[in-house]
Amino acid sequence: MTQASICTIGDEILIGQIVDTNSSRISRALGEKGIRTDRMISIPDDRQQIIDSLSAELRTHDIVISTGGLGPTKDDITKDALAELSGSKNYVKNAEQEKIVREFLHARGLDVLEANLRQALVPDGCEVILNRRGTAPIMVFRFPEERFGHNAVLYALPGVPYEAEAALPDVVDDICSHFPIAGIIHRTVMTYGLAESALSALIAPWEDSLPSDMHLAYLPNTLTGVRLRLSVYGGDRQKDSARIDAEIEKLRPYLGANLYSDMDDSLQATVGRLLKASGTSLSTAESCTGGEIAHLITSVSGSSGYYLGSVVSYSPSVKTSVLGVSPETIREKGIVSSEVAAAMAEGVRKLTGSSYSVATTGWADAYGDEFEPAGTVWVGISGPNGTLTRRFCYHNDRQRNIERFAASALDTLRRYIIGAF
Amino acid sequence: MTQASICTIGDEILIGQIVDTNSSRISRALGEKGIRTDRMISIPDDRQQIIDSLSAELRTHDIVISTGGLGPTKDDITKDALAELSGSKNYVKNAEQEKIVREFLHARGLDVLEANLRQALVPDGCEVILNRRGTAPIMVFRFPEERFGHNAVLYALPGVPYEAEAALPDVVDDICSHFPIAGIIHRTVMTYGLAESALSALIAPWEDSLPSDMHLAYLPNTLTGVRLRLSVYGGDRQKDSARIDAEIEKLRPYLGANLYSDMDDSLQATVGRLLKASGTSLSTAESCTGGEIAHLITSVSGSSGYYLGSVVSYSPSVKTSVLGVSPETIREKGIVSSEVAAAMAEGVRKLTGSSYSVATTGWADAYGDEFEPAGTVWVGISGPNGTLTRRFCYHNDRQRNIERFAASALDTLRRYIIGAF
Repeated sequence: MTQASICTIGDEILIGQIVDTNSSRISRALGEKGIRTDRMISIPDDRQQIIDSLSAELRTHDIVISTGGLGPTKDDITKDALAELSGSKNYVKNAEQEKIVREFLHARGLDVLEANLRQALVPDGCEVILNRRGTAPIMVFRFPEERFGHNAVLYALPGVPYEAEAALPDVVDDICSHFPIAGIIHRTVMTYGLAESALSALIAPWEDSLPSDMHLAYLPNTLTGVRLRLSVYGGDRQKDSARIDAEIEKLRPYLGANLYSDMDDSLQATVGRLLKASGTSLSTAESCTGGEIAHLITSVSGSSGYYLGSVVSYSPSVKTSVLGVSPETIREKGIVSSEVAAAMAEGVRKLTGSSYSVATTGWADAYGDEFEPAGTVWVGISGPNGTLTRRFCYHNDRQRNIERFAASALDTLRRYIIGAF
Repeated sequence: MTQASICTIGDEILIGQIVDTNSSRISRALGEKGIRTDRMISIPDDRQQIIDSLSAELRTHDIVISTGGLGPTKDDITKDALAELSGSKNYVKNAEQEKIVREFLHARGLDVLEANLRQALVPDGCEVILNRRGTAPIMVFRFPEERFGHNAVLYALPGVPYEAEAALPDVVDDICSHFPIAGIIHRTVMTYGLAESALSALIAPWEDSLPSDMHLAYLPNTLTGVRLRLSVYGGDRQKDSARIDAEIEKLRPYLGANLYSDMDDSLQATVGRLLKASGTSLSTAESCTGGEIAHLITSVSGSSGYYLGSVVSYSPSVKTSVLGVSPETIREKGIVSSEVAAAMAEGVRKLTGSSYSVATTGWADAYGDEFEPAGTVWVGISGPNGTLTRRFCYHNDRQRNIERFAASALDTLRRYIIGAF
């Protein structure tokens, strides 16, 4: 099977100032074509380490994809290291990339600096894939068999995620036209409402009966719940796809309404599909989640078709003045209470005229009040079938509690819409 | 110098389903103690690859920290691989961790399953650091010099970021008590408003005069602007710290109001500090940014002290009914216009009674209207010095435009508050 290694270059990754999101995106794109990534490494901006590490990866992999170290500033030394690695003696100008550099700067009203034009220079031993979102082109080095014991290719991508992402389809196309493609099939099922170990116990009879070449993985995540991923490596694509589908069908009855999608998908996208399908609309009222739910909902493209808006009532005064929650309710029941969650949901639904609404009030931080402890959220849902509230309690830090609150609210809304509450 | 390697174990990283955030957090914690991470690798859930890769890292590094592969479900095989690597013959129960497992499950109202209790079993050749946020303990393997040619230690942490994070201080303490600590000093300066190449040209005279042992890196980021990081490796901690401080002072005049913090910091934290210092309050009205600004502001602990709330007016009807924007203005000037941004800012400030407000209206997606093209945002600021608006235009995809809009809005607010607009 064609194997890939992904290598990020940059001190900023190694000192932990930046999280590497490129490798994940690249391996996902390769995986869709049946190319398996079996190693990722991160190395510093050091000429010799770049040469040594890339050589080691090229010896053991057909495909090596590097990101980073190609910016216009003085800390970027990757290009020189690649020239040495490939035995290139000269730099040549890529006229098309230079044109993009000039247009790119012009569109932003920036001067064309010497440092920018240097970006369009590449070692003469490489081919170029254009960078349409930035200034540094993608360099492709094809090494003859005698160099690393097999035909190996190195793709050097810029480190800026937005630029690397845009170049990725061209890189994948180039790989597909040069390497034989084996099959990897993944299918993912999204669940919410069960912890990993409870889920594992629940589906044990199904899991134990899986064919030996099928691999099941549990992927817990605060915002999405536990994803279940079923994979088969290196078989017949079409046959395996049908076999995995059949296993997923057997899994469904175990999960019931806890299964919310059989794509790799989010709660907010699932809710969006339900609203779109029924031609209904949504508004939100958030206290402790502080805009996180609105942010999740509007991160889905097309959300303006069903989402009207939100009132983030971070202070009690906004709860009473904008959402119409009665001050007596807050005083008597507590700001974190079923009654306040219900009044917030009803208030924002009335204010915006939406079909459904969801509201949150809770204690995200490590303190509560005389009514409710830290980590508690009350979720209110209002809609055509009346108003309901649910209480959830978590034991995490602020940021993670906020994420769990938002996910629980979206899941409660989903269950309300499908009538499974 | 003491060198560390960080190794993540898990197919979910290699197929790109999960982004590795542990390595970044760990290397940052090590860096603060002067321990340099010079390599990160990610490998699959494969027993032999775990043994081979960890052995290779242990041969070339004093400290190897692994994360992942320790969950209660059947896809986790790391513990067996570690037992083999360390030559352990038996598993022993760690009574303290078992107690935590039971308490952990009890607090969540979950049954204690056999799979959960197995988590408290560890190979007899390791020491244990307790996992207080989860069930799998941290395993510490100290290898005798003859094994890898030097004294090497392997710390095996769980993969769940929230659990790994909590164990990290104990791991770092253990490292500090077993290894000599060299010095690394980093200082970071945050800038907003200048692109990387323009910034580089602006500060070139300063950069060219830096002492040869000081390393400058440019770290561009959509949400924070360009960070400048100045580092010295392996010198005298106190002396280098003072030398870096002196260089940062020389840098200030070049940057002016573009410099917003001399800590590694966010725009929203900076704005929060300004509001807190002056005892003033803030509200927001968001259209195209859909709650992202509220989410950023409330992600700062203590934000309830100055942040009142937001109206996310995703639909035009909410802009008119809740924020009081006149329908005529929308019709005549366009929904993305200076006038609507100003009216939204003034509307939410009136609604909430806040000292300052910030509003956004723009086209995040790849279309505009007859008034403004895609990628345009109008930011409105209202406050004690009147109302101002600013227009920004970006050339990115939806998600990135939203991030840039939010950052531009926060930066415009910051400049308004400090009087540098």
